[in-house]
Amino acid sequence: MKTLTEYLWFETEKRREIIHITETIRSIVDKSGVNEGFVLVSAMHNTAAVYINDPDSGLKEDIWEWLEGIAPYKPDYRHSQTDDDNGDAHLKNLIMHNQVLVPITNGELDLGTWQRIFYAEFDGQRRKSVVVKVLGE
Amino acid sequence: MKTLTEYLWFETEKRREIIHITETIRSIVDKSGVNEGFVLVSAMHNTAAVYINDPDSGLKEDIWEWLEGIAPYKPDYRHSQTDDDNGDAHLKNLIMHNQVLVPITNGELDLGTWQRIFYAEFDGQRRKSVVVKVLGE
Amino acid sequence: MKTLTEYLWFETEKRREIIHITETIRSIVDKSGVNEGFVLVSAMHNTAAVYINDPDSGLKEDIWEWLEGIAPYKPDYRHSQTDDDNGDAHLKNLIMHNQVLVPITNGELDLGTWQRIFYAEFDGQRRKSVVVKVLGE
Repeated sequence: MKTLTEYLWFETEKRREIIHITETIRSIVDKSGVNEGFVLVSAMHNTAAVYINDPDSGLKEDIWEWLEGIAPYKPDYRHSQTDDDNGDAHLKNLIMHNQVLVPITNGELDLGTWQRIFYAEFDGQRRKSVVVKVLGE
Repeated sequence: MKTLTEYLWFETEKRREIIHITETIRSIVDKSGVNEGFVLVSAMHNTAAVYINDPDSGLKEDIWEWLEGIAPYKPDYRHSQTDDDNGDAHLKNLIMHNQVLVPITNGELDLGTWQRIFYAEFDGQRRKSVVVKVLGE
Repeated sequence: MKTLTEYLWFETEKRREIIHITETIRSIVDKSGVNEGFVLVSAMHNTAAVYINDPDSGLKEDIWEWLEGIAPYKPDYRHSQTDDDNGDAHLKNLIMHNQVLVPITNGELDLGTWQRIFYAEFDGQRRKSVVVKVLGE
């Protein structure tokens, strides 16, 4: 069995941002030498997500508008009373989830044609991390 | 370590459909010879989901109605301007997620009594795939 | 390759409850002797979730209020006609998901500073289980 663990770091300029990370994950899988296995990509924060979807920029705007509709920013979450005003970021994390597991087949990410991996920041402008763990043979 | 990778193919008659795939996954695990491990079942499209829940047909209708309420079909998503009218299917994918990881214990899917695995198609009537990857020993 | 499988059991006093399980998962990983690998924590029911987020008690109330808004309890789900009145619990499960996969690095849960693992019960007051499977080396 081979494993490789790496950490990605992000400090976004805007509070909310979507960052494409497929190529970064691919290069970590290459480095691992794993031909058959899994790579887990998991945000280490409760106010960010890692998800798989389409890279279309219009869709990204649709996702933001939709997320704001079902998990809106507002100052009166109970969480806001003990912390900063990021209650919405925690709920957005729960919808979008903090992780994806990607199969590795013949040394390649086994994704569909239109599937890309993204980091979604819901409360940025500070240093945050993602753990990437490859396991296989 | 043993691994086995197979692909399932779907071409649904209706645009939206839920398909029960537990037995198919079970037979792939049998074929793999893995006694202790994981099987990942992951849609290779951004407009379909793989989920675990109850097989009750009433519940399936509840799920459709509920999904339509929180990620409704409508022609004016920004994604629709550059692609076909499947913006809702991308959002439904984000809620339901494209994958599940099922533990394999003593050569069997380690699921609860009422847990079944489903493929949910949100934009069908075309050929689409799911990757199934078994890893263990 | 090493694997270890254990089952957690819950019988909550209230119908809906959130239970912190990080320390329990950590002790199972310790027992497994796995230094590099994954631990899957997966509810064996369609009416409960396992999720990662912040332990703040105000946030837990926010989560309950928010879940009730987007997947409300009501007696008229179709599922309620053939089963007990837990249609909402199935939808809450679909949003929150029944599982998380946590990386193990140097023998430790590789979580962020504020990340904790929780079991969320949506239809309790009966005996329910979670499977915990460690795989690695």
